[in-house]
Amino acid sequence: MTRTDRVQARLVEAGLDLLLVTDLINLRYLSGFTGSNGLCVVGPGVRRFVTDFRYVEQAAAEVAGFDRERAPAEFLAALADGWAPGPLRLGFEDHKLTVRQHARVRELLPDHVELVAGGSLVERERVVKEDVELEAIAAAAVLADEALEAAIAPGLKGRTEREVALSFEDAVRARGAAPAFATIVAAGANGALPHATPGDEPISAGVLVTIDFGAQLDGYNSDCTRTYACGEVGGELRELYELVRRAQAAGLAAVRPGPEGREVDAVAREVIADGGHGEHFGHGLGHGVGLEVHEAPRLATTGRDALQAGNVVTVEPGVYVPGVGGVRIEDLVVVTEDGGRVLSRHAKELTTLD
Amino acid sequence: MTRTDRVQARLVEAGLDLLLVTDLINLRYLSGFTGSNGLCVVGPGVRRFVTDFRYVEQAAAEVAGFDRERAPAEFLAALADGWAPGPLRLGFEDHKLTVRQHARVRELLPDHVELVAGGSLVERERVVKEDVELEAIAAAAVLADEALEAAIAPGLKGRTEREVALSFEDAVRARGAAPAFATIVAAGANGALPHATPGDEPISAGVLVTIDFGAQLDGYNSDCTRTYACGEVGGELRELYELVRRAQAAGLAAVRPGPEGREVDAVAREVIADGGHGEHFGHGLGHGVGLEVHEAPRLATTGRDALQAGNVVTVEPGVYVPGVGGVRIEDLVVVTEDGGRVLSRHAKELTTLD
Repeated sequence: MTRTDRVQARLVEAGLDLLLVTDLINLRYLSGFTGSNGLCVVGPGVRRFVTDFRYVEQAAAEVAGFDRERAPAEFLAALADGWAPGPLRLGFEDHKLTVRQHARVRELLPDHVELVAGGSLVERERVVKEDVELEAIAAAAVLADEALEAAIAPGLKGRTEREVALSFEDAVRARGAAPAFATIVAAGANGALPHATPGDEPISAGVLVTIDFGAQLDGYNSDCTRTYACGEVGGELRELYELVRRAQAAGLAAVRPGPEGREVDAVAREVIADGGHGEHFGHGLGHGVGLEVHEAPRLATTGRDALQAGNVVTVEPGVYVPGVGGVRIEDLVVVTEDGGRVLSRHAKELTTLD
Repeated sequence: MTRTDRVQARLVEAGLDLLLVTDLINLRYLSGFTGSNGLCVVGPGVRRFVTDFRYVEQAAAEVAGFDRERAPAEFLAALADGWAPGPLRLGFEDHKLTVRQHARVRELLPDHVELVAGGSLVERERVVKEDVELEAIAAAAVLADEALEAAIAPGLKGRTEREVALSFEDAVRARGAAPAFATIVAAGANGALPHATPGDEPISAGVLVTIDFGAQLDGYNSDCTRTYACGEVGGELRELYELVRRAQAAGLAAVRPGPEGREVDAVAREVIADGGHGEHFGHGLGHGVGLEVHEAPRLATTGRDALQAGNVVTVEPGVYVPGVGGVRIEDLVVVTEDGGRVLSRHAKELTTLD
């Protein structure tokens, strides 16, 4: 069964005749197309792909298993041509299509086509990775780990956050990949900002430095965070570090098929709350990673998806103490039949860099 | 008058009481906030900004002139508290909000708040750049030109498209900026793909090489394209080049306040059609550039916005001959009171690089 076959089974189950896929990541997942404009319609016996002038040649090279056409507007107007008379339920990606795009599609479609909010049908298929996808993610993770090693080899003291971030990103590109997201390097009090932008002040000794880094290779992403000590750090920061490390280990140990995301989140959250820092852990424990850096399933207080073998998730508790600093430790984990396989290779004992 | 004051005038004119701004670029334009999650509501006497846990400290540093709050869900539920009874017309960005987000916002809002498709109210304000914005765009353009010079200094022959693209992007980053978009380097027959991805084959002599490059600095973008000869190229390619160069000059000469985007597009398009390559110019002549690489106004066959002083647009005709190659020449232009001021500095005579 192809990916599209499996999505087709989902859409039939959802009572839809066809699914209109407009999200580019979902389109890539189903068709292989990597351009920036296109859509497809799938359903029993229907595999139609459309792009515009600019991507006709590229689509011919990338897209297999679909009838390829040009000019989306005409395509939508003619979508129901040759279809049996009577109502046709066309699902759409209501979490991606804007209100204005929806109105435009509605206008172009013949009246007997009903537009139905289709939910995340393709994303639900994407959460369980195929072997080829697991290999791509693992390769991205290995590459990112190597690039981080290169970036921190000269130490941290006296370099700016921005220099360290750039040296990681350069190392990623030198290895034929791209940064998966804007690298975070947050030293000292900046570490208390979970999404700090790297700054231009030299990093001084005696602080913790959080580095959140990832690589994208063949479309697939990695995501990892380590927090280092720059020179000797005081007892309060060490205690924070060990608390997060314990919470991270507890979260990792809870990863296996079965529990809902919120249950895994709760395991790590409890450790941090018991350590007296519950209010300093303001984000979810983790998230799925694949063609997107953030995708389903969510490990968070609101995460209701049960983990399944083949999921790839992060486990990344953090503690952020305003004015003092922060710690986050994040691994990328494949959910296996009986637990989890960690893809991130850097040590998690507090490592001191000069 | 602040930017928000001017948007407020537009929303009152549109019959709205308040405008909900969810698009992050529009949010940045109005509030200064550069994080990845937030929204604001503006209207007469109302300047409210909301973000989540992760960005509270960042918002305190960046956002001025707004009441800052946390937790969007509670904020929306309480939006009409203290408002006079009776219906309240709340505009939303229908071209940005997804169908699902819209349903969620609707659910959170009290019944007497009416959600009204608000159109591109902030974008309409953004098309006319303030002096500080023109300076930022010009600085990005100068930086990108310098970075291109560094990237092509070693010549093109024997290097891969990817190497040339990376060396441009490295040079951009070394100057403290970021690439505005994935750099295009398309040699020989790849030049016939307007949005080719840089490949790993060495560039050979005797071909045209199109480089589409830009930098982002302080949030503002530049966009420029040059097509070079790698070694000596034949007469057919030289003729294509001169045709596009004439069309580009004609397009530039047509830039001034007054004409609609489609009128400027038509001037350049006619030159190419007269040269026998009408069907090989499948995209619009240009687009606005600012906080986004592609924004209003569009210079295209469908562009109905009249150009105004303070617009910044590209003028970028192209000819793409399948199997043969392509030429595109693009300048970034400020629309002035009496014409246009070109920000791009590289020569437009066909330049031969080895």
